[in-house]
Amino acid sequence: MRRVAIYPGSFDPPTLGHLDVVERATKLFDEVIVAVGVNSSKDPLLTADQRIDALRKSIVGLPDVWVDKFSGLLVDYARRQGACAIIRGLRATADFEYEFQMAMVNRRLQSDIESVFLMTNWEYSYLSSSIVREVAILGGDISEMVPKAVSELVAEALKDRKPAS
Amino acid sequence: MRRVAIYPGSFDPPTLGHLDVVERATKLFDEVIVAVGVNSSKDPLLTADQRIDALRKSIVGLPDVWVDKFSGLLVDYARRQGACAIIRGLRATADFEYEFQMAMVNRRLQSDIESVFLMTNWEYSYLSSSIVREVAILGGDISEMVPKAVSELVAEALKDRKPAS
Amino acid sequence: MRRVAIYPGSFDPPTLGHLDVVERATKLFDEVIVAVGVNSSKDPLLTADQRIDALRKSIVGLPDVWVDKFSGLLVDYARRQGACAIIRGLRATADFEYEFQMAMVNRRLQSDIESVFLMTNWEYSYLSSSIVREVAILGGDISEMVPKAVSELVAEALKDRKPAS
Amino acid sequence: MRRVAIYPGSFDPPTLGHLDVVERATKLFDEVIVAVGVNSSKDPLLTADQRIDALRKSIVGLPDVWVDKFSGLLVDYARRQGACAIIRGLRATADFEYEFQMAMVNRRLQSDIESVFLMTNWEYSYLSSSIVREVAILGGDISEMVPKAVSELVAEALKDRKPAS
Amino acid sequence: MRRVAIYPGSFDPPTLGHLDVVERATKLFDEVIVAVGVNSSKDPLLTADQRIDALRKSIVGLPDVWVDKFSGLLVDYARRQGACAIIRGLRATADFEYEFQMAMVNRRLQSDIESVFLMTNWEYSYLSSSIVREVAILGGDISEMVPKAVSELVAEALKDRKPAS
Amino acid sequence: MRRVAIYPGSFDPPTLGHLDVVERATKLFDEVIVAVGVNSSKDPLLTADQRIDALRKSIVGLPDVWVDKFSGLLVDYARRQGACAIIRGLRATADFEYEFQMAMVNRRLQSDIESVFLMTNWEYSYLSSSIVREVAILGGDISEMVPKAVSELVAEALKDRKPAS
Repeated sequence: MRRVAIYPGSFDPPTLGHLDVVERATKLFDEVIVAVGVNSSKDPLLTADQRIDALRKSIVGLPDVWVDKFSGLLVDYARRQGACAIIRGLRATADFEYEFQMAMVNRRLQSDIESVFLMTNWEYSYLSSSIVREVAILGGDISEMVPKAVSELVAEALKDRKPAS
Repeated sequence: MRRVAIYPGSFDPPTLGHLDVVERATKLFDEVIVAVGVNSSKDPLLTADQRIDALRKSIVGLPDVWVDKFSGLLVDYARRQGACAIIRGLRATADFEYEFQMAMVNRRLQSDIESVFLMTNWEYSYLSSSIVREVAILGGDISEMVPKAVSELVAEALKDRKPAS
Repeated sequence: MRRVAIYPGSFDPPTLGHLDVVERATKLFDEVIVAVGVNSSKDPLLTADQRIDALRKSIVGLPDVWVDKFSGLLVDYARRQGACAIIRGLRATADFEYEFQMAMVNRRLQSDIESVFLMTNWEYSYLSSSIVREVAILGGDISEMVPKAVSELVAEALKDRKPAS
Repeated sequence: MRRVAIYPGSFDPPTLGHLDVVERATKLFDEVIVAVGVNSSKDPLLTADQRIDALRKSIVGLPDVWVDKFSGLLVDYARRQGACAIIRGLRATADFEYEFQMAMVNRRLQSDIESVFLMTNWEYSYLSSSIVREVAILGGDISEMVPKAVSELVAEALKDRKPAS
Repeated sequence: MRRVAIYPGSFDPPTLGHLDVVERATKLFDEVIVAVGVNSSKDPLLTADQRIDALRKSIVGLPDVWVDKFSGLLVDYARRQGACAIIRGLRATADFEYEFQMAMVNRRLQSDIESVFLMTNWEYSYLSSSIVREVAILGGDISEMVPKAVSELVAEALKDRKPAS
Repeated sequence: MRRVAIYPGSFDPPTLGHLDVVERATKLFDEVIVAVGVNSSKDPLLTADQRIDALRKSIVGLPDVWVDKFSGLLVDYARRQGACAIIRGLRATADFEYEFQMAMVNRRLQSDIESVFLMTNWEYSYLSSSIVREVAILGGDISEMVPKAVSELVAEALKDRKPAS
């Protein structure tokens, strides 16, 4: 039996913490699908296609990892992919209560797909997409927070934006 | 002396967890008022009247429970009702810090009304109105998360909505 | 129907925070029993009888409050007393997760007795019996942390102790 | 060497808890700059100038405290001011995880400026600008939550607002 | 490649929550070793051999699960078994901070073994070995908290004990 | 005015995380006293004198840092030293609630000494004396967790110990 795991998120943008989790997951599962959620569209920094593109460039060299997008309920998508697990990264500073609540509701909706929590490396434990967005918008340097491909995409995306007053 | 307790919330929509708390509260107080707050109007799923209607249908059979609505400060409403307590449900995954802060500010505003925290049953501990809304909007089945009357109302409310892009 | 609530603890020693909770509970229930647990006997500061005596002196003037002791399972004691509720004080700095776990196990053992959480006043939110013990043993002044009757008892109890090396 | 500390925030409006932190900080540093962030402009209650004005009136009498405004990255501003520390107030009910994450990202961006956490007094531990705003908008009395100068400004600001429906 | 996971603990006694985690783990890994730690010997309720025996009886029917014991560092044991993962169960009320700290130290000691967190079912989220011990010692009924084999062993173990004063 | 800060602890043994905090504190205060508490004597790994010796060797090169020991109440010691601040290190995985409670009781006992929380570096955020002790006793390598002087002392201390059964 081939074991497939889904690693879902909005990845707006992907961070080095996300990639750290992907890499750890590849050692535990036969196949890992990085799944970009395209439901929530409240003024993202990167388009879904840009995020998918950046992820694809960032996972080059990792075996058995795919990048995909999904809409609708995560558990429905996971079931269609034949996944046995949903991967979530835990940071020491993460909103663990929210993660737990989502895992419980996902289990209620689809009891045979397991939520599996992995721990990001400590050097990435402060990282989240929203922090990266905030730093980038205020003109800070994000090159140590995201993969190289992402760094360039974000710079371009910000150039196209109207400046925040 | 008849002891009256207020159970406030936005109840958009009411969940089985809310009803579990109401039922527990009826054993501790002589009268329980489920009070639907109508202050915040940021694009609710159900109108205040729909929520009140759904709550009324859901509490049929519970003695000494009333459904009402309120606007303005909760403690002012509670005082006008002669309440001695404000009921709040605690879930293992709830934002306890926020609950605590609200209880402290309510005490400061009206020192003789006590905040009383009850624990929802574990099978509902993942449930919140926002989770139910999210699942429903993505097309998931919420029939095990809300009372029957709510389930139908939500289905109708979603039909009238423009689909999220 | 007369509603009885149990307020259990080791009360070694009772603090002003404990009394604050008792006072709040009297406004919510017809009768409050302060129940001193005598199970755990790992070198207490005060004997069970001293704690009961100190509590009795401290509640003088509060109507419908009784001090009692219990051993064995709390829920069995509560059931024998005909209680509908177990009162627990919540402090902002309290070990909420432990409180929640105990409430869940108590509900499993006796489903018709409700755990009810009240919030201590903020000026007592740092107080716990173990902090008071620690301060007293190190020679600090506890007179603003405990009722007067307790302050004297602790001073005497410490005189009889062999000094910690 | 003169040690300068920055106390940043949106201060919309300043609370007695903020002033409590400022006062504590003056005892630890040679100079304290209260820095009003003007980045986020999502419909504030008070304008940046009103907040600065209210803070200036509130710190009269405190030596070596200045009020300033900043935009862009906090650590860049702190570096330009020659600060060695960023002060953050911790409340028992505060979102500590968020504070920690911000401190980590700030350290990553500027490693020689230290985040220093001070504890507000317990009587202010429930206070936050957003709570004050919420109470004021609902018609509650905020005079015990904010400095006198703020109380008047908020009252005026609310008069000019369109009432929330 | 066969993926082996270790599920370590003291299991004094094993609970239904532990078994729930084992069962979930079997769906994610090719082999699961339930590893009873025999380091800490502070007056256990059950001997290591009794715990191993009870676990073996409880996992009958689960494929590819083994029960073993270990002493010394967990990561050394895991490495010798060729494991790629250490399984930990997360409860909503668990001491998550401690779990996180242990996972970080284990990663530092052995970077290629991943800590994997699974969520117990909500009906077991209040369960821990120490709660079960406490209830059993006070004479409570633990038959809905532990596997049948454990229930009997604990009853016998308590008969042989001197009663707590 | 010379500002003196106390950094108290049991330091059994000192870790690289402790030294990280000391170093940060030296940039904020004119003088830092590392104060080894000798109250609690429950079978330490290192004697108070060994801990003091190891700390002295580890701070060589840091200006204006002293190592001292104290017994009795921390705030009394801090007052006698003319300190304006008590330094505490915060780790993402630390027991923040306990830290907060101690800071509140210290403020109540001595209101003019401020508790100041600094954040350890992320690479040390998993470190605590008890984790180091546990790893060392089980035969693990602690050389990346503690200063060199400590590593040798602990090795010797363990040789003199009777092996844990």
